Amino acid sequence: MPKRIAIIGCGAIGSLYAAHLAHAGLEVWVNTRRPEHARALNESGLRVSGTHEFHVRVQATSDPAQLPDCEFGIVATKALQTEQAFAPVAGKFDRGAVLSAQNGLGSEEILARLTRGFIIRGTTFMSGTRHSDTHVQYELDTPTWMGPFEPTNTPFTLVQELAALIAAGGLNAIALEDARPAQWSKLLFNSAVNGVSALTGLPHSPEFADRREPDSLGHLLYDLLEEGKRVAAALGVSLHEDPWEMNKLGAQSNHPPSMLNDVRRRQPTEVDFLTGAVAREAERAGIPAPLHTAVYRLIKGKEASWAVEGAD
Amino acid sequence: MPKRIAIIGCGAIGSLYAAHLAHAGLEVWVNTRRPEHARALNESGLRVSGTHEFHVRVQATSDPAQLPDCEFGIVATKALQTEQAFAPVAGKFDRGAVLSAQNGLGSEEILARLTRGFIIRGTTFMSGTRHSDTHVQYELDTPTWMGPFEPTNTPFTLVQELAALIAAGGLNAIALEDARPAQWSKLLFNSAVNGVSALTGLPHSPEFADRREPDSLGHLLYDLLEEGKRVAAALGVSLHEDPWEMNKLGAQSNHPPSMLNDVRRRQPTEVDFLTGAVAREAERAGIPAPLHTAVYRLIKGKEASWAVEGAD
Repeated sequence: MPKRIAIIGCGAIGSLYAAHLAHAGLEVWVNTRRPEHARALNESGLRVSGTHEFHVRVQATSDPAQLPDCEFGIVATKALQTEQAFAPVAGKFDRGAVLSAQNGLGSEEILARLTRGFIIRGTTFMSGTRHSDTHVQYELDTPTWMGPFEPTNTPFTLVQELAALIAAGGLNAIALEDARPAQWSKLLFNSAVNGVSALTGLPHSPEFADRREPDSLGHLLYDLLEEGKRVAAALGVSLHEDPWEMNKLGAQSNHPPSMLNDVRRRQPTEVDFLTGAVAREAERAGIPAPLHTAVYRLIKGKEASWAVEGAD
Repeated sequence: MPKRIAIIGCGAIGSLYAAHLAHAGLEVWVNTRRPEHARALNESGLRVSGTHEFHVRVQATSDPAQLPDCEFGIVATKALQTEQAFAPVAGKFDRGAVLSAQNGLGSEEILARLTRGFIIRGTTFMSGTRHSDTHVQYELDTPTWMGPFEPTNTPFTLVQELAALIAAGGLNAIALEDARPAQWSKLLFNSAVNGVSALTGLPHSPEFADRREPDSLGHLLYDLLEEGKRVAAALGVSLHEDPWEMNKLGAQSNHPPSMLNDVRRRQPTEVDFLTGAVAREAERAGIPAPLHTAVYRLIKGKEASWAVEGAD
């Protein structure tokens, strides 16, 4: 019997996991909240283009009752949707393990509250473009880092097994005894870049790494990342990569970070799992994080402005 | 011979000065950059409605050569337009005194570079709505604080004389030996409120004074104002009013601050004269102002985003 694995949330990242795992011969179930999405997947399967090119069949449902018990789950929703998406199916993983492949910090805690299964801490650098419900483009062959979520005492062998399954499908997955250094590198990078982008309206552009003038935006990114590094250090987390170097590289991309897209659509952002999470962790560690706290409050204010008639 | 006084910049505030000074019997000249504005004023005069109701004749020109030498000038342009508006007529005030009735810090320095006349430091709390080129509504009977600009050694008697002329026209004007406490109170208030409003899109609303939750925006305003007070103290400037109290009062108004209007219209803001000025003064005083510096850089980034295609 092949292993049975469910993907919860089937945007670009969820589609990539689903397609590649099905390609590796696993029994893949996609759980989506939209019945028409499930119908399209059942009828047409999933097409991958770009770096990889193939087509696979998957099973999909929007009805929690139809989802069988699974050995593994991968949650790939927006962090804000974790609870709403996972709660109805959480019991299906009570004897399994669930990877959070989501942005920021805090999703693992939500999953752990909902299932009796093991939780796997994940951080993915994959990127894809979702062209339709049944077609995703794979863009960069970048890794998913994963490791045990400490509070559930997840056995490392389970993490290794899931990483091997993902790798068998052709994706880049790396099991780590401690996934926090990778998660925190991306958390700090994402918190600073998404926060500044959401407030300025700039995509991740060369200004983010420019420190030539006193008012250059790169100073703010640098100061945010230094502040973030102090929070990580205070919590005893070493970093896998220097987020300032990640920022310098990303600033060449002119890529709109997800929170900029959220702001443009005036929909709630993931700030509570990013900049807000760093501010909360700083408070927990008892050290100041005035810049993260300020950016966090500004974005919460921006979200509030959308409810105000006539606001920008 | 009545005193001759020129108003440079004839928006709501400039129109209020021009009309009331003409009402007091002074020879008032309006200097505007728009010929059709000058023509309308010469033909129709200025109408004031609201708290005061009257109609007066004024002389207006958009041609610097037509402006006669004046005993007094009042510059009421946006701070960003100071140089462009005043440079062509600066020589007309070489034997006079010029009041800056503009937002923020730094306009007096620009005026002093351009004329040999005395400069008067001003801060106005007046508010009006400009209904047309020839009709302004006077809203609040609030004062203009004014005092000598220290670098030009402006005699206090000149400040008193101008304040008396403005008061004779029915406006509230107060001469102070030191106008910096009033200017800095408004500077700190304006820097914090305009900055947060420009970044969040919120008008000056109750959120700005709300400190009930950890992510409440009022904390950020409070922290910004505390930081600003430390800058003022380091420069030896005592404050005329507590800007936090000004914020609490203003937060009831739901008034869109000028920088929010600028952001909505995607036009350059006065941030260099407000939040940026506080950041610069902090650096001059050798004390940190991380929050003002961050807000300043974010708004400069926001201004830069308007030049980027597809930016929000």
